[in-house]
Amino acid sequence: MLTTAVIGLGYWGPNLVRNLAVSPRTRAAWICDRSPGRLDAVGAHFPAAARAEDPAAVLADPEVDAVVIATPVATHHALARAALLAGKHVLVEKPLAATAEQAEELRELAERRGLVLLVDHVFLYSPAVRKLAQLVAAGDLGEPLFIDSVRINLGLVQHDVDVVWDLAPHDLAIIDHLVGRVPDSVVAIGASHSGGGPVDGAHLHLDYGAGLHAAIHVSWLSPVKIRSFLLGGTRRSVLYNDLDAAERLKVYDRGIEVTEALSPEGRRELLVSYRSGDVVAPRLDSAEPLALLVEHFADCIEKDVPPLSGGDQGLRVVRVLEAAQRSRAAAGERVAV
Amino acid sequence: MLTTAVIGLGYWGPNLVRNLAVSPRTRAAWICDRSPGRLDAVGAHFPAAARAEDPAAVLADPEVDAVVIATPVATHHALARAALLAGKHVLVEKPLAATAEQAEELRELAERRGLVLLVDHVFLYSPAVRKLAQLVAAGDLGEPLFIDSVRINLGLVQHDVDVVWDLAPHDLAIIDHLVGRVPDSVVAIGASHSGGGPVDGAHLHLDYGAGLHAAIHVSWLSPVKIRSFLLGGTRRSVLYNDLDAAERLKVYDRGIEVTEALSPEGRRELLVSYRSGDVVAPRLDSAEPLALLVEHFADCIEKDVPPLSGGDQGLRVVRVLEAAQRSRAAAGERVAV
Amino acid sequence: MLTTAVIGLGYWGPNLVRNLAVSPRTRAAWICDRSPGRLDAVGAHFPAAARAEDPAAVLADPEVDAVVIATPVATHHALARAALLAGKHVLVEKPLAATAEQAEELRELAERRGLVLLVDHVFLYSPAVRKLAQLVAAGDLGEPLFIDSVRINLGLVQHDVDVVWDLAPHDLAIIDHLVGRVPDSVVAIGASHSGGGPVDGAHLHLDYGAGLHAAIHVSWLSPVKIRSFLLGGTRRSVLYNDLDAAERLKVYDRGIEVTEALSPEGRRELLVSYRSGDVVAPRLDSAEPLALLVEHFADCIEKDVPPLSGGDQGLRVVRVLEAAQRSRAAAGERVAV
Amino acid sequence: MLTTAVIGLGYWGPNLVRNLAVSPRTRAAWICDRSPGRLDAVGAHFPAAARAEDPAAVLADPEVDAVVIATPVATHHALARAALLAGKHVLVEKPLAATAEQAEELRELAERRGLVLLVDHVFLYSPAVRKLAQLVAAGDLGEPLFIDSVRINLGLVQHDVDVVWDLAPHDLAIIDHLVGRVPDSVVAIGASHSGGGPVDGAHLHLDYGAGLHAAIHVSWLSPVKIRSFLLGGTRRSVLYNDLDAAERLKVYDRGIEVTEALSPEGRRELLVSYRSGDVVAPRLDSAEPLALLVEHFADCIEKDVPPLSGGDQGLRVVRVLEAAQRSRAAAGERVAV
Repeated sequence: MLTTAVIGLGYWGPNLVRNLAVSPRTRAAWICDRSPGRLDAVGAHFPAAARAEDPAAVLADPEVDAVVIATPVATHHALARAALLAGKHVLVEKPLAATAEQAEELRELAERRGLVLLVDHVFLYSPAVRKLAQLVAAGDLGEPLFIDSVRINLGLVQHDVDVVWDLAPHDLAIIDHLVGRVPDSVVAIGASHSGGGPVDGAHLHLDYGAGLHAAIHVSWLSPVKIRSFLLGGTRRSVLYNDLDAAERLKVYDRGIEVTEALSPEGRRELLVSYRSGDVVAPRLDSAEPLALLVEHFADCIEKDVPPLSGGDQGLRVVRVLEAAQRSRAAAGERVAV
Repeated sequence: MLTTAVIGLGYWGPNLVRNLAVSPRTRAAWICDRSPGRLDAVGAHFPAAARAEDPAAVLADPEVDAVVIATPVATHHALARAALLAGKHVLVEKPLAATAEQAEELRELAERRGLVLLVDHVFLYSPAVRKLAQLVAAGDLGEPLFIDSVRINLGLVQHDVDVVWDLAPHDLAIIDHLVGRVPDSVVAIGASHSGGGPVDGAHLHLDYGAGLHAAIHVSWLSPVKIRSFLLGGTRRSVLYNDLDAAERLKVYDRGIEVTEALSPEGRRELLVSYRSGDVVAPRLDSAEPLALLVEHFADCIEKDVPPLSGGDQGLRVVRVLEAAQRSRAAAGERVAV
Repeated sequence: MLTTAVIGLGYWGPNLVRNLAVSPRTRAAWICDRSPGRLDAVGAHFPAAARAEDPAAVLADPEVDAVVIATPVATHHALARAALLAGKHVLVEKPLAATAEQAEELRELAERRGLVLLVDHVFLYSPAVRKLAQLVAAGDLGEPLFIDSVRINLGLVQHDVDVVWDLAPHDLAIIDHLVGRVPDSVVAIGASHSGGGPVDGAHLHLDYGAGLHAAIHVSWLSPVKIRSFLLGGTRRSVLYNDLDAAERLKVYDRGIEVTEALSPEGRRELLVSYRSGDVVAPRLDSAEPLALLVEHFADCIEKDVPPLSGGDQGLRVVRVLEAAQRSRAAAGERVAV
Repeated sequence: MLTTAVIGLGYWGPNLVRNLAVSPRTRAAWICDRSPGRLDAVGAHFPAAARAEDPAAVLADPEVDAVVIATPVATHHALARAALLAGKHVLVEKPLAATAEQAEELRELAERRGLVLLVDHVFLYSPAVRKLAQLVAAGDLGEPLFIDSVRINLGLVQHDVDVVWDLAPHDLAIIDHLVGRVPDSVVAIGASHSGGGPVDGAHLHLDYGAGLHAAIHVSWLSPVKIRSFLLGGTRRSVLYNDLDAAERLKVYDRGIEVTEALSPEGRRELLVSYRSGDVVAPRLDSAEPLALLVEHFADCIEKDVPPLSGGDQGLRVVRVLEAAQRSRAAAGERVAV
């Protein structure tokens, strides 16, 4: 049974506490937040957990095996670093850190100390993405041609990060999980429509070479909520619509066929026709992603299972975020990763 | 009663013939196509129309008041020019021409000759877009902040143009109709996934200055068909989903409110909250856009009504298409319009 | 090439004329309607067709091989009878006749004269229903357990029939096509909500014995349009949603499993769990049902193909309609068919 | 602060415990279940609650103000009766009791003792139904003409009740809330398709006189989940789709207009046309119904607020359930309520 401590009880922290408390493999020994109000509110539901306003108290407890960090991004590096230096395994909220340099340091530190560093790229643990990854790995889709991910909503604007750092890590982590590498270059277009606030709507374009392109649209300003991830392959295509509870994943047995033909005007021309086949919505487990993440965290620590979303991936995601930030600041100039 | 001739009986031409034949204000006197087979196939349904393989025969007929051109884009300029020089009013399929220079020449020629030059930006005549334009003009939406248009499908790839020239004119015309000007600059990202064929998937980003940005996603390779146009305003937002026959237009009484507040850490910060109100799907007429276009064409000719989609707009759309083409060729470099 | 005549140019007739005119196997030699206005309106699009206000003129033409009847139900019997007596093959709009007695007479007359009598149960010719019938015939669904069909809309109320006679023939024909027999008994509940007009909303319940039940809900008063047909089988279930253009048919690999178990209270009890599998939306042809019906009509006449929706089925459908009428008149009393 | 005890920790009980524990106005002092396993499982999350296997222990505690009963239906009467006799206010899971006689006794007992008897007709406390009730009360819909409620799913079959007693109470309570009286008569058609188990699919037809009819379709065997409630009024109609998280309630400004006209055949006829207007999806609060129910329970006890779903309504719902049971047992015979 792993003894864990959760630092940061904002929007996401309490979900982590709940899953750590419910899992048979972990216990939530500490909850920590600088705000006494939040400590009380969350503590009321988890009376068994000790409370601390200062993370130092948590890190000083030799009983604690692992620390879960769900604080604002700017603080990830300092807290994760301190936790690793204290010999604790670390699960950190996405993105891993505020800069690639920080992420790299955390990755190396964890490696050097032989500690687990896991990033909460929670969608990787959803049954839909797990199935999607199996389809890609099995070659059922053929070669990936394009990815179009849309993650827009009328969302509460964050004060510490812009919409790219807030939402895009989800898409970037999923794509990294499927593609396994960073893009060659990034073009990012974005703007703030909320009166001098952070960027609240943006489009990212990732060029992976070898004919693979990915586009990501994130926004806090859409009156309609969309969570769709489209992957087009040479053999099949997949639509992952996270809002379609009944059919989250759909596999389209459709593709294009390129042939040469004579135009009505008698010119030789490239004729591209398309074939249309069945659509299959595979059955998916109903497991809660966060519960599976917590179990995976325990497996990494107790059974040396390689992390599905470890420091390497966390670093790759931050590197793309940094490149996107530079591109957007340069009005969409293409930036190499 | 206007006497019209239709040149080009490919995919769209027959629809124009049908509407010209049915309308009480026009008659389809000629159908013209270089392919005898098409002439027979279409002619069988419109026995009253004379047939010609050579446009010259049509233009030589003094009875003909107006010529409708539905041929491949590359031929628009020569045919429209000849028709205008022959003193005929012209309705031309979108886009107006293959280059801005050609479009400009046609616009000027029509103006000089006092002839009507109308571009078949057909969506402008749909009840949904007409209603949308009314909402914008009436200020019901406040200031436009962003536009996101998605027009993707598993479509038959054209041999004469790429997906941007094929599909984006629809979106560009709608946006031009609402905004009334060209963007300051364009960034276009696109690629061909069909083995050396034309660009079959692309994203356009238009910067209109004054905080207004528009994004357009067009593709021939999507396994799912999407036709959604989202306009976010300072007061309300509108979603125009052309595939939702029951509720094509939805007005969201939602917006964001920007306030200053103290962060939990005590820093002054910009806090953006959002308000949520009713969603209204206004009743729309069921009129066929093409029928309304034909009627409008007759109004322009007989009643001097200013064209809703005349040479000016046709030129603006082509200018943006050209800029997008340059940007895409330069791997997404920002191009001034 | 079959020479045909269409009698009745109301809502549906022109569609029949168009398909008969376009098909390579038939020609529309006559159009007939008592209203000169309709003759002109429809005739304008089919100048090749002779016009008649009196059906007698049509039946007297020895050139005419087959007569298509699309008049109000009350006139089906007299017109179809006259056509058969004139030695013409007959395609009649659904329902076949206003009473089972009339339908029976037509069926017998056609048989005696060796003429084709086909009923326009048009949905039987839709790719979706054809596929559904294949699935049932192949046993892919197991034994049918229940059918629930909903066909509601805000529809124009008919003056000559109530909503059951107007809409339910579609559902009854589809069910008859799948089940191949009439139900043992019918319960019908319905009412008129339009101020003394005909019944405008009704529910039919058909008991087929052997554990198979079918429910049909038809209405002219629903603000939302629904066209869904659900068939639950012992192995799989199918949803046919005629409004879902992208996935009209969905096959659910789901079912229930009945086991015995001990209740928490220690009682032996029947425990019914369910298994959940993939959902498959099979690819469907895009053919127009009415075109396939016309071709089938030609096959029946020229190649002696047994009618898919002949007099037998037409009679069975009318018998159920009559039983439903009696049940409804008796406030829902169960009526044997 | 009300001191409450929850008896029955099956599927629904824990939700009640959670809401009673979280509400500032109630505390969950006891949890009670005959199964030690369930007591431990639920108790783990609510360490503050005392545990009991025997309800007697709970009822004997003078501290307890109110008892919440979430046990199988067969036990509602005995437990609620005992609780009322012990001077406790009672909140009981739907349906109130297994027979109208039992429900009547509970209603009278509560009244005589001056205690609150509330039935957990939880949908009455949902923002959607509250808004719907306001629209009906304000006359925005005109006179109700028909109600069609569909509540089907592939659900776990209950061992203690059939699908009518399991699901229909929700619909019956909503209708009772809107209409305020029992129907004159009921027709129920249903069957068991799960091999000798309880009825797992049924249709109820309620005749309220004055032109109002309601139909309810409940099923445990549908591969697709539907939760739709359609109310047609003389002025407007409403669709309440509980699965449409974004637009649960839609108000259709549509109706029919009855006029007299001459048929094409020159007969005087009733012509019913329809008008089509806007569709409005009113903004709804996001409050959790169960939390509002708990608050209402507290209001009833502490502020003498009349119960929204008290013994009267609980009795009316059971009376309709009993009538439906008799009708179904008689193969759909009409049964007076």
